[in-house]
Amino acid sequence: MPRDGFRDDLATRVAYSYDNSRRRCTPAAVLFPEETGQVVKLVRACGEHGIPVTARGLGSATTGSAVPASDGVVVSFERMARILEVNPADRLMVVQPGVLNAEVQRVAAGAGFFWAPDPTSAPYSTIGGNIACHAAGPRAVKYGTTRENILGLEVVTGAGDTIRTGTRTTKGVVGYDLTRLFIGSEGTLALTTEATLKLTPLQHGRATIRALYHDVDAAARAVAAIMAGPVTPCALEFMDGTAIQLVGADHLGGASPEEVGALLLIELEGEPDLMHDLVESVSKRATVAGTVSVDIATDAAEAERLWDCRRALSPAQRRLKPHKINEDVAVPVSVMPALVKGLADLADHHGILILSFGHAGNGNLHVNLLGDDADLERRQACLVEVFRLVLDLGGTLSAEHGIGSEKRMFVEMELGKPSLAAMRALKRVFDPAGILNPGTLFPDD
Amino acid sequence: MPRDGFRDDLATRVAYSYDNSRRRCTPAAVLFPEETGQVVKLVRACGEHGIPVTARGLGSATTGSAVPASDGVVVSFERMARILEVNPADRLMVVQPGVLNAEVQRVAAGAGFFWAPDPTSAPYSTIGGNIACHAAGPRAVKYGTTRENILGLEVVTGAGDTIRTGTRTTKGVVGYDLTRLFIGSEGTLALTTEATLKLTPLQHGRATIRALYHDVDAAARAVAAIMAGPVTPCALEFMDGTAIQLVGADHLGGASPEEVGALLLIELEGEPDLMHDLVESVSKRATVAGTVSVDIATDAAEAERLWDCRRALSPAQRRLKPHKINEDVAVPVSVMPALVKGLADLADHHGILILSFGHAGNGNLHVNLLGDDADLERRQACLVEVFRLVLDLGGTLSAEHGIGSEKRMFVEMELGKPSLAAMRALKRVFDPAGILNPGTLFPDD
Repeated sequence: MPRDGFRDDLATRVAYSYDNSRRRCTPAAVLFPEETGQVVKLVRACGEHGIPVTARGLGSATTGSAVPASDGVVVSFERMARILEVNPADRLMVVQPGVLNAEVQRVAAGAGFFWAPDPTSAPYSTIGGNIACHAAGPRAVKYGTTRENILGLEVVTGAGDTIRTGTRTTKGVVGYDLTRLFIGSEGTLALTTEATLKLTPLQHGRATIRALYHDVDAAARAVAAIMAGPVTPCALEFMDGTAIQLVGADHLGGASPEEVGALLLIELEGEPDLMHDLVESVSKRATVAGTVSVDIATDAAEAERLWDCRRALSPAQRRLKPHKINEDVAVPVSVMPALVKGLADLADHHGILILSFGHAGNGNLHVNLLGDDADLERRQACLVEVFRLVLDLGGTLSAEHGIGSEKRMFVEMELGKPSLAAMRALKRVFDPAGILNPGTLFPDD
Repeated sequence: MPRDGFRDDLATRVAYSYDNSRRRCTPAAVLFPEETGQVVKLVRACGEHGIPVTARGLGSATTGSAVPASDGVVVSFERMARILEVNPADRLMVVQPGVLNAEVQRVAAGAGFFWAPDPTSAPYSTIGGNIACHAAGPRAVKYGTTRENILGLEVVTGAGDTIRTGTRTTKGVVGYDLTRLFIGSEGTLALTTEATLKLTPLQHGRATIRALYHDVDAAARAVAAIMAGPVTPCALEFMDGTAIQLVGADHLGGASPEEVGALLLIELEGEPDLMHDLVESVSKRATVAGTVSVDIATDAAEAERLWDCRRALSPAQRRLKPHKINEDVAVPVSVMPALVKGLADLADHHGILILSFGHAGNGNLHVNLLGDDADLERRQACLVEVFRLVLDLGGTLSAEHGIGSEKRMFVEMELGKPSLAAMRALKRVFDPAGILNPGTLFPDD
């Protein structure tokens, strides 16, 4: 490790003490490795002395998974941020963990490709972080999540072993799938030191459709009809009635917010010559009983205008209420209406405001419990009931943000004891000293 | 277990002694569980007595992974072959492991869907077997392999624990990805007792293109051009010059076998109205320097005629040589020409006939070493060099057939010691007594 690769001054320690959750904890030191060999040495040294190790990209996680332990070290990958290979013929890129998602997209685009995971944090989140949290985004409905878009990894386990997983091919079955085991493991099994990304060709034709519905049932029927059709949108975004009311009439193309109970933003891409036919096919399916209007953007400016409605949501929420609990659940698409109805009942019962938006094609809703510090406890009580509702509907507690420290007390509700016990045993295989990101993913024993 | 769920008569034991490899071994007994609870009991009983357990679908594996140990039992899932749920709205099916792939396709088609993995063995291979071996097929190039098309599993581990993995949603990140860990594990970690399959909408437009090239380089350039384009074929099949010579001039639409060094069969599907444009887009990309001809099927009968060439290959091989070593490797698409060239050199050097065909979009070639019993040793020596060549080119030893007992002595060449050690440790987590499918996947210690 270079001399300046170790820092324990307070300013640095504080700068690496938090992520995008409300949690923070000041580490004992911050390390800046420049190559895999240094990662091996530091992990082994920490293992010998029982020092907790928390890997960090740029700290955009919303779950506390990048918040260190108080007596631990942060391993920041900002000096391992190179793109090692761009290979259009094999549709892959090899990168170090510290490179930005947006930088990968920029370089891939130069070769006519993109990497499918597109979290909102793309400009300020790293590939290592995306892998740790199993990031996704709107495009996952067509192109899959991180899991489907990584070919292989190099990692350093908690025991300090360097393991290469996967292949440079899109098929492969030699031994167990360690690649997927490490994806989404939030730095609790190993630290990613290199990743082989699967690239997808850019599509040059693009069209946007905004569909308004009287109620969520109608929108859910439209989603099911679209998803049963041959043209899969590259984004199929949803906003519930509360969200629509909040952004107001300016973004509804003349419709009154009162008559609109749900909105879908549908983005399509493909061969430019085919876009007209693709739009026709999807808008037909989007038009179901209970549809208020279906608007189609014919150029980029018009498309931007349709997306404005979705973009206006975050500022509007902040204006109304200073704090939100922003959840990330998914349910089977067919029960989205039951989820939204159940959420409205919980909002009534607890006297708080809940609004939902998200990636409807995956049934992935970001459920926001709005409020301020005064009602935090009430909202947290409500949140437990939200999770119960999601599980009762056959859903999952996290679609694309992960568990971190925020949700670890809830994972047994979803996983059950035998799965959780198996996961603890897997953790011991790769991290026998238990130094990797303690306090993350697992509930207390 | 019902009284007739246990059989140890010789006729039954012999009937369950082999798979589609040349290996066979007569088990001590064959068990026919009818529900998960019975699987739990039998695995626990076998664990107590140290009796090896080999799960079996219908034995179509080519690797020996369904061949039992001599003192072990076979667990046949033929009585757990029900489809438990068909859910078009959520694009999923829940099935027992013994159901045939073809039966899943038939039922899914009734609802307008299909399950993407389409091994040639579909009419006589089971979903449990497909999961164990990570089956794929031609359609994987567009729709992914088993790994991308399973949402969740119920399994019974070697310790007799029942674990449910995954979700009923297409996104989810709660704890480690056990689903993918069990897929491709060939019955060495757990026995699958239920699977939630991700369905894909059927496409009703279809078109077939057959492109002939002077040499493999030209075909590989065409594959790269197609795969960099916005229209991904649902099959992109390859035959090398040796294979073409073998099937002869009847299937080349007038071209002479001597001038054809490679063939691509390209299948497209989509909205019926769009097929004309899709075909135009892809045939343009398929036409590169070195192209002999590009033929387009305009109806189903014509498409069948184009596929005849591929179908004629297996009978032609059998007529020429009674026995083949049928390998299943994959290399990055860009080095397919180097692989085919290297194989030709090896064939020359060892004085044997090697022909290759397969799924070019994934770089997945089935390399056939033709011969008879007399030259088996020579071909096996050559095979080791084939594997070395594949690994030198950045490829993998198995794309979709798995390891079984056939290739287990080679896995360390690909994985390296640390990965293999990690996999052995994972095996101990789920199968502490080491009873599940011993002699499969791992080399001897």
